[in-house]
Amino acid sequence: MESSVPPTRQTISTNGHLPAARDADFVVDYLHRLRFTRDVFNPANPTLAEAMGRGGQRRARVFVDAGVAAAWPDLQQRIEAYAKSHADVLHFARPMQIVPGGEAVKNDPAHVQAIVRGMHEAGLCRKSYAIAVGGGAVLDAVGFAAAMVHRGVRLIRLPTTTLAQDDAGVGVKNGVNAFGKKNFLGTFAPPWAVINDELFLTTLSDRDWRSGLSEAVKVALVKDAAFFDQIEATAPRLRTRDHEALLPIVRRSAELHLNHIVSGGDPFELHEARPLDFGHWAAHKLEQMSEFRIRHGEAVAIGIGIDAAYSALLGWLPPGDAERIRRCLMNLGFELANDQLREAHSLLDGLGEFREHLGGRLTISLLRGIGTADDAHEIDHALMTKAIIAASPS
Amino acid sequence: MESSVPPTRQTISTNGHLPAARDADFVVDYLHRLRFTRDVFNPANPTLAEAMGRGGQRRARVFVDAGVAAAWPDLQQRIEAYAKSHADVLHFARPMQIVPGGEAVKNDPAHVQAIVRGMHEAGLCRKSYAIAVGGGAVLDAVGFAAAMVHRGVRLIRLPTTTLAQDDAGVGVKNGVNAFGKKNFLGTFAPPWAVINDELFLTTLSDRDWRSGLSEAVKVALVKDAAFFDQIEATAPRLRTRDHEALLPIVRRSAELHLNHIVSGGDPFELHEARPLDFGHWAAHKLEQMSEFRIRHGEAVAIGIGIDAAYSALLGWLPPGDAERIRRCLMNLGFELANDQLREAHSLLDGLGEFREHLGGRLTISLLRGIGTADDAHEIDHALMTKAIIAASPS
Repeated sequence: MESSVPPTRQTISTNGHLPAARDADFVVDYLHRLRFTRDVFNPANPTLAEAMGRGGQRRARVFVDAGVAAAWPDLQQRIEAYAKSHADVLHFARPMQIVPGGEAVKNDPAHVQAIVRGMHEAGLCRKSYAIAVGGGAVLDAVGFAAAMVHRGVRLIRLPTTTLAQDDAGVGVKNGVNAFGKKNFLGTFAPPWAVINDELFLTTLSDRDWRSGLSEAVKVALVKDAAFFDQIEATAPRLRTRDHEALLPIVRRSAELHLNHIVSGGDPFELHEARPLDFGHWAAHKLEQMSEFRIRHGEAVAIGIGIDAAYSALLGWLPPGDAERIRRCLMNLGFELANDQLREAHSLLDGLGEFREHLGGRLTISLLRGIGTADDAHEIDHALMTKAIIAASPS
Repeated sequence: MESSVPPTRQTISTNGHLPAARDADFVVDYLHRLRFTRDVFNPANPTLAEAMGRGGQRRARVFVDAGVAAAWPDLQQRIEAYAKSHADVLHFARPMQIVPGGEAVKNDPAHVQAIVRGMHEAGLCRKSYAIAVGGGAVLDAVGFAAAMVHRGVRLIRLPTTTLAQDDAGVGVKNGVNAFGKKNFLGTFAPPWAVINDELFLTTLSDRDWRSGLSEAVKVALVKDAAFFDQIEATAPRLRTRDHEALLPIVRRSAELHLNHIVSGGDPFELHEARPLDFGHWAAHKLEQMSEFRIRHGEAVAIGIGIDAAYSALLGWLPPGDAERIRRCLMNLGFELANDQLREAHSLLDGLGEFREHLGGRLTISLLRGIGTADDAHEIDHALMTKAIIAASPS
């Protein structure tokens, strides 16, 4: 894993002695490890220990979503048993630290401060591991803390929700909210490893089990028509919480998200790269307007419905496809009607906030067809208001 | 500036359908712009506007070290006049924000919060610019805020002290202190550009004018024997604050620091890369022990003296060279004796803290000769105590 170092690109000599201007290129390389397993803390399961590598015993601390800790009351004992069986690579300096789950952890800076303190108390260094076990919000908050401590402690994500396993957990971002703006603070920081343990999905509430499916729909619509067909065909089984039906959907969605990062050419969105955010401008705003009563995945489902309708009204997407998308989401159990949608004017403010967060000119992903996205740089507010109404089946 | 995307390195197929483990490489590329100029806010000076590029008018906000604001009472007017002349590329959404100078800004999290709020109020996005004008501590704090806001606002550093211009300003790090540990929180985040304006050096206190010279000595000792000869020969003029003598020293030191980042192969120290930190384990601890009454550059001079003496006691460095280094530092005006050195035991605690911050096993740069460094992984505490005494000319 050597970096290639291109030569200095340009020097403008002025005083004959040393240049007054120098532009120097350099690259940073990363390795992203994605694993799928079952029962990660079973001492017989080598996945976690192998992902940590063989560089001798490393310090680690586990940070656990309070919801996960409640669903798995013997988690601390399981973690200790695992460490005992893998003492050659792994030493837990402190017991696991419990972190509030859901958006609450991203809204109050005291939570990130407590996580940072937990890393300090455990004496984690840059070669130590912070292991984050939980939903997307907990992964975001622990990841943000890990990115800051010593300028980067190694982060291993164990996503526990459908949404975290099929999308957020794979990503190279972290963040918390501030000034009422979602993810106003954060960094781009690739995880050391992401381990999707299907066992965690079995104890989810129906709401958390389902809501992440909207991200699989999103990535299918933007990247992979055949995957959309698969989700559509599986929807009745997914609606009734068929675990075996869920696993290939989660896996394919995670793969597509990872592909976008490693082959997009601009993983940290430094230039013109677009994140996979079809339907997300409205989703972010809906979450905020509802004071996060609407979950991210639920908001994304509504946002997908709106932007599919807008794509159709614009003449980009065949109207039948917009209807097919809407029906698929409803077959998955999503409610596309929501009181917040009556405040179309407030919702449209989300366009400006979305632009500010990504920077530069407004860019909204729309659909040319199922599996094919294209960028729009202007949004007709009257037409979008129509789309908001059309997407809401009241 | 395209990223090259290497193919997925390894897939371990298990269930025939999608792999259970995937290791995916990707790279992120950066462009580091280093400029030397005089009178950066003179409307006729194109350096700043050109460094921002020609992508249309961008939002910006200037964050100024309180010490600089005091030394340049017309700075706000100068900034406004500059913006007026360069309105095609640059729009200051808010007046400059004053930031406390010196280590204080890194010790109280309220200061970084105020900077973050200032970026929020100015509506900065990822394509906007935070322009930091000040000494190393202010650059560190503003850089940390800029790295977090929207996961990265573009940072332009205008270092104003010798130390910031010849070392810290060029780097790819930022950070603040926490739990009594220097730079406990921060990120690796390359600046958009660094502009060294020699005019700022003219209003420095003698102490700030001089103390950064120790970083030039450091990089010379580690990388470039001829540069050490040059500093040694220039020392009498530098001691009496000869501006023309200073400029080539600052320039060469900044160049050597930039070279280390772009050609070291591991600029974010993710693997085994060593930062240019000869003499720094003791320096960090001395700063902390003195509650930051000793400036970083002053502490580095003392730390260089100690590690040169230790290198000699170890038989790595000819004793005459250690003496030559000590004399050069004293000729530059550094005091190598300090009350804190009597607490050798406390000082030695700095070795453990240094190891924790960098992670992995202890690695201390020592000298094999002037211009040639080598790593030591064990430090003999009794011998180091002798070095501390030897380096202190009481």
